[in-house]
Amino acid sequence: MSIFSSDFKLGLLGGGQLGRMLLQAAIDLDVHVKCLDPDPEAPCHKIASEFIQGSFQDFDTVYAFGQDCQVITIEIENVNLEALEKLQAEGKKVFPQPEVIRIIQDKRIQKQFYLDNNLPTADFVLTDSIEDIRKNIGFLPAFNKLGKGGYDGKGVQKLTTEADLSLAFTQPSLLEKAIDFEKEIAIITARNEQGEVKLFPTVEMVFNPVHNLVEYLFAPAEISEDILKQAQEIARNVTEKLGIVGLLAVEMFVTQDGKVLINEVAPRTHNSGHHTIRANHTSQFEQHLRAVLSLPLGDTTAHSKAAMVNLLGEDGYSGESKYVGMKETLAIEGVYPFLYGKKTTKPFRKMGHITLVDNNLETLKQKVSQVQHLLKVISE
Amino acid sequence: MSIFSSDFKLGLLGGGQLGRMLLQAAIDLDVHVKCLDPDPEAPCHKIASEFIQGSFQDFDTVYAFGQDCQVITIEIENVNLEALEKLQAEGKKVFPQPEVIRIIQDKRIQKQFYLDNNLPTADFVLTDSIEDIRKNIGFLPAFNKLGKGGYDGKGVQKLTTEADLSLAFTQPSLLEKAIDFEKEIAIITARNEQGEVKLFPTVEMVFNPVHNLVEYLFAPAEISEDILKQAQEIARNVTEKLGIVGLLAVEMFVTQDGKVLINEVAPRTHNSGHHTIRANHTSQFEQHLRAVLSLPLGDTTAHSKAAMVNLLGEDGYSGESKYVGMKETLAIEGVYPFLYGKKTTKPFRKMGHITLVDNNLETLKQKVSQVQHLLKVISE
Repeated sequence: MSIFSSDFKLGLLGGGQLGRMLLQAAIDLDVHVKCLDPDPEAPCHKIASEFIQGSFQDFDTVYAFGQDCQVITIEIENVNLEALEKLQAEGKKVFPQPEVIRIIQDKRIQKQFYLDNNLPTADFVLTDSIEDIRKNIGFLPAFNKLGKGGYDGKGVQKLTTEADLSLAFTQPSLLEKAIDFEKEIAIITARNEQGEVKLFPTVEMVFNPVHNLVEYLFAPAEISEDILKQAQEIARNVTEKLGIVGLLAVEMFVTQDGKVLINEVAPRTHNSGHHTIRANHTSQFEQHLRAVLSLPLGDTTAHSKAAMVNLLGEDGYSGESKYVGMKETLAIEGVYPFLYGKKTTKPFRKMGHITLVDNNLETLKQKVSQVQHLLKVISE
Repeated sequence: MSIFSSDFKLGLLGGGQLGRMLLQAAIDLDVHVKCLDPDPEAPCHKIASEFIQGSFQDFDTVYAFGQDCQVITIEIENVNLEALEKLQAEGKKVFPQPEVIRIIQDKRIQKQFYLDNNLPTADFVLTDSIEDIRKNIGFLPAFNKLGKGGYDGKGVQKLTTEADLSLAFTQPSLLEKAIDFEKEIAIITARNEQGEVKLFPTVEMVFNPVHNLVEYLFAPAEISEDILKQAQEIARNVTEKLGIVGLLAVEMFVTQDGKVLINEVAPRTHNSGHHTIRANHTSQFEQHLRAVLSLPLGDTTAHSKAAMVNLLGEDGYSGESKYVGMKETLAIEGVYPFLYGKKTTKPFRKMGHITLVDNNLETLKQKVSQVQHLLKVISE
């Protein structure tokens, strides 16, 4: 069956902002995308070719949803894998593959995968109770991460001394040695069914220490040739060893002594690739589509240096969202806001992002700071 | 009222491919776009925030359509102006303004406008009958253009000798002296309500002599500094003299003796600006939105050289469209197809376009030729 302007259907589990930008890319190739999300007002609901309200975590819903799709993909990884496995067994293409999502969905299995495949990562122990953590007290300071269900800074906490033990997760978790890292970087890779692999340029992330979300990132990262080569080799290796079809976002630490370690990966489009819409010949969203639709991958070259700032709901405001400073922001050359179509804001909710394009890295960072002061999401 | 993620509505008359790409840009800023088109399967019908089936040439339909919109714009110029004038008189913002569309909609008034404003254009006479044309036989060879209703190569014909007189239009038309031109170029300008004007870089058009449609274009045009300055001055002048709010596509001839003449203008996004989606920091579609929404205009700088080829329905095929050679096309670096979402093809129907990005102009032209041979739209 032809994919373009036809009865072909790509099923998409999740209808958030990542799905929204994927839909924009799908319009170029006139690919029909059918989207599943529990929120009837999800960012995708108005622009999907078809929008089904329902849970992507429910077996029956996902299985029924996939029936008339030829290919099924995701924009979030905590989906019902049993339904995807059944659809796959019945001949549907599910990309990324359920067996790959299964490895990544549980941070404990993910870490074990790195160990089994000689992929460099921080030392860790698996823990199921506070008692387990107490036994590994020598590991502190460490990050205590929930195996499943963590997202956007949730399900991760730092344990520094024995006094923090009472905070530890009691569900299946892991304890990961805190890395004395110099930088956090990321590379988004793509792999299609034919085994073609392409890497996007490396990005460098700057975190806000308070709410532990990426505050802004810029690309390309300011790293040495040696670090770049290590990072590219790791990103390619983990992609090929997983054998993923689709996008893989590989987040890495650069240690003080010049080593690169995998932090974690996500089997989908990612916050660290939003700037590619404006700064690279092919965006991460188009690349994901090409990969899961078994099309040749696009040129990932950057034509411009770029930064990306998350636009979070202002602290202290909840309710109908209102954007303050938008005209002033748009007046700055090379500044492009993306809003996620969320009618209501709450403190630190991801409401959108701003891409900044400027080939002078210093000017770029100044504009980031300018935009952070200008543009606010409050409520009426 | 805030424009973003709110109850604000932008009304769009026309739901074709130009509207479709405008909608993609509107998603970035989460602007609600309500679209009117007579074709229930128009390219916009699935992705508009709201889609109303109806005629944009009918007074009552357009007037009713505009009632709940704060701003109304167009993607095609043969719309009902009386309804737009009434909406404007009642306080709606209509951009481009009906009075500007009125000048452009009729090629006879448009030509007179150039004359009245000292804007260089080819000599012409107005004609209402074959008799009028016979009186001006000395004008031949000339282009005979219908005052109203011409579009995409229709309503224009060349009269070379007296023997062609029987073909002449008998409706109100004009006879325009055939220009011995070296090149045809275009500049897209934008002007917002505040009077800010920005120009896109100049593009050069290459026509197919058989069906008189643009076969491909590339940007920037290969012209001298002097020609560039003349063209930019003319484009800015016609924009400011019309006082248009929105986009203006200014098509111009470069004569053999180094003069620039206006061919015609269109008060909207235009075929000659499609490549800006991939090759310029701000696309023509985003720029049109910024202009009609009274936002600051974006940076029009090109980051890459580009070409754009129209993808026309193959001669001899009518029916459900089928794309042949898509994978091979996507495998060429820097080649990006855009499909317009038309389920059926017919000979020479505009089904999409392909943007090619390559900083070497020779390679770019080779790729154009390669893609023209590879990618075909046929029917099942």
